[in-house]
Amino acid sequence: MEAAVFRGERDIRVEEVPDPTVDAPTDAVVRVTHTAVCGSDLWFYRGQRDYDVGDPVGHEPMGIVEAVGEDVTSVRPGDRVLAPFAISCGECEFCRKGLHTSCVNGDTWAGDQDGAQAELVRAPHADGTLVRVPDRYADDEGVLRSLLPLTDVMCTGHHAAVSAGVEAGDTAVVVGDGAVGLCGVLAARRLGAERIVAMGHHEDRLALAEAFGATETVSARGEAAVEAATALTDGGANSVLECVGAASSMETAVEVARDGGTVGYVGVPQGVSDAAFLDTAFGKNVTIAGGVAPVRAYIEDLMADVLQGTLDPSPVFTKTVDLGSVPEGYRAMDERDAVKVLVRV
Amino acid sequence: MEAAVFRGERDIRVEEVPDPTVDAPTDAVVRVTHTAVCGSDLWFYRGQRDYDVGDPVGHEPMGIVEAVGEDVTSVRPGDRVLAPFAISCGECEFCRKGLHTSCVNGDTWAGDQDGAQAELVRAPHADGTLVRVPDRYADDEGVLRSLLPLTDVMCTGHHAAVSAGVEAGDTAVVVGDGAVGLCGVLAARRLGAERIVAMGHHEDRLALAEAFGATETVSARGEAAVEAATALTDGGANSVLECVGAASSMETAVEVARDGGTVGYVGVPQGVSDAAFLDTAFGKNVTIAGGVAPVRAYIEDLMADVLQGTLDPSPVFTKTVDLGSVPEGYRAMDERDAVKVLVRV
Repeated sequence: MEAAVFRGERDIRVEEVPDPTVDAPTDAVVRVTHTAVCGSDLWFYRGQRDYDVGDPVGHEPMGIVEAVGEDVTSVRPGDRVLAPFAISCGECEFCRKGLHTSCVNGDTWAGDQDGAQAELVRAPHADGTLVRVPDRYADDEGVLRSLLPLTDVMCTGHHAAVSAGVEAGDTAVVVGDGAVGLCGVLAARRLGAERIVAMGHHEDRLALAEAFGATETVSARGEAAVEAATALTDGGANSVLECVGAASSMETAVEVARDGGTVGYVGVPQGVSDAAFLDTAFGKNVTIAGGVAPVRAYIEDLMADVLQGTLDPSPVFTKTVDLGSVPEGYRAMDERDAVKVLVRV
Repeated sequence: MEAAVFRGERDIRVEEVPDPTVDAPTDAVVRVTHTAVCGSDLWFYRGQRDYDVGDPVGHEPMGIVEAVGEDVTSVRPGDRVLAPFAISCGECEFCRKGLHTSCVNGDTWAGDQDGAQAELVRAPHADGTLVRVPDRYADDEGVLRSLLPLTDVMCTGHHAAVSAGVEAGDTAVVVGDGAVGLCGVLAARRLGAERIVAMGHHEDRLALAEAFGATETVSARGEAAVEAATALTDGGANSVLECVGAASSMETAVEVARDGGTVGYVGVPQGVSDAAFLDTAFGKNVTIAGGVAPVRAYIEDLMADVLQGTLDPSPVFTKTVDLGSVPEGYRAMDERDAVKVLVRV
């Protein structure tokens, strides 16, 4: 089969690799039809995170089950499925409490596992990892485009909103206008936030944030941005969604939080090399909650909303490529030509 | 009057200074009878935090009201009172929600205000700041020694426990065996924790932790300490009280937290110059809650327990000095000859 492989900094190639097979009785093999390029893929793409040359890439698979091991009971060949970026058993302490990213039998796609930017993936712990799409929507291309973000960014934005404690009537600030931040806006609105202030640096993305439900946007930078968001929220918001993961965005998030409020952070901390934000948080009693999103815990709930037409994160896909053009997808993401790239395999 | 004054690194002197007076109608003047030296006083004492030479010191006042302004209604001359380290109005948004440290009219003792290591202090916002001790206990020296830690360390340890979400039946880990950590043990026990693992480096203090309710202690350092506490808690505790404020203790706290758990941190972040703990917290979805303790919100509740005899943090005072010997009190704290020093003025 063909699969995208990391060959070095800014060097992704689509190569012929062996087909995956059902190795364990709990495995499934899925023929990928849709996948995506993630903002977090850019870390290794840019050489900012170690990644082994020759390892496969991609962690947002959707497709059709091709084969299953004998212990798999929840899906069968022909089923339309999607999967979060984290592989989870569904049965351990942490899976049972909805923290699938801490699964004691867990793993992630790519690296040692198959990557999702490929024709096929072997899905370990298929019963715990894969989520089945109801048959009536299994071939609805529009629905599938709206469901695909549930493999990562939509559930990650939701985790930010949940971690920040967003409830009906609240005012929330969303820091970051990437795909996760935009999904954070959607999630905050879905949870009932009345006012949502989106902070970012790209007018086109902030326009999308408004389309997603942001009531105000702040495009200033640095201290001016903090002052603007603080003024808009009469002194800061009780719920702040940090959707970037940089030192500056953590600091911004804590600064625009109201004293006693909560920052829900989901951006992979990348280059948060100093802890100045903690000094700020300490004096204000701002809680720092969140972390890597337990996407598996959220997919069913959010899928119900997508299927009934009340949630549609698909506008984050501003570019679509085929498997052979995955390298072009990375380039577009890297150069911010695209918010998020859908790969139609 | 006489007051302790900062004269430079490791140079505290007791000097003659003007008596404070009632300047605003909301002021009171309190004749200090008991006060203490705090672990956080050591930061400027050691030159690790800027402090103006000539400024008064001390922030844990207890005494007898000497005079009040015309708008003060909750206390009158002759009343026994104590006050938290933070001055608060009692009427703003944050005071009303129990976050007195964020009071919009707030201040702290010492620095520009009077210090509590003195014969007299002017208490601004007396109605919001001072807490009256019932008359029947007003001169009970034993009770007063037990109440004095409520001005800071006992309520700070309580804030760690509350922030960490300690509830009945829980397992909690307390990082730090200073006065705050020891009070954290008391607070966790008071909130019903069944197992309390105290982590520290001083056998005498860990013995006190056991007397306070710790069911296990860990005196190892570094990775061995983390391994020991993790083993004792079968993989980490859902509630961890971080009572130090150093980079290493934050990292330890996050490491001994169970995935999905909460670290309640109350140690002033001092030298937390890198954010490695955030990487650890991110992967485990460990919440970092807490901050500077809103002591005023907790004093009445904890005072009720002290007065009925079910809470006694006074053993943290392992040394008592008079006002003239405050410099010796600092020395003893600095050299760890004392857990906490009581100043009998």
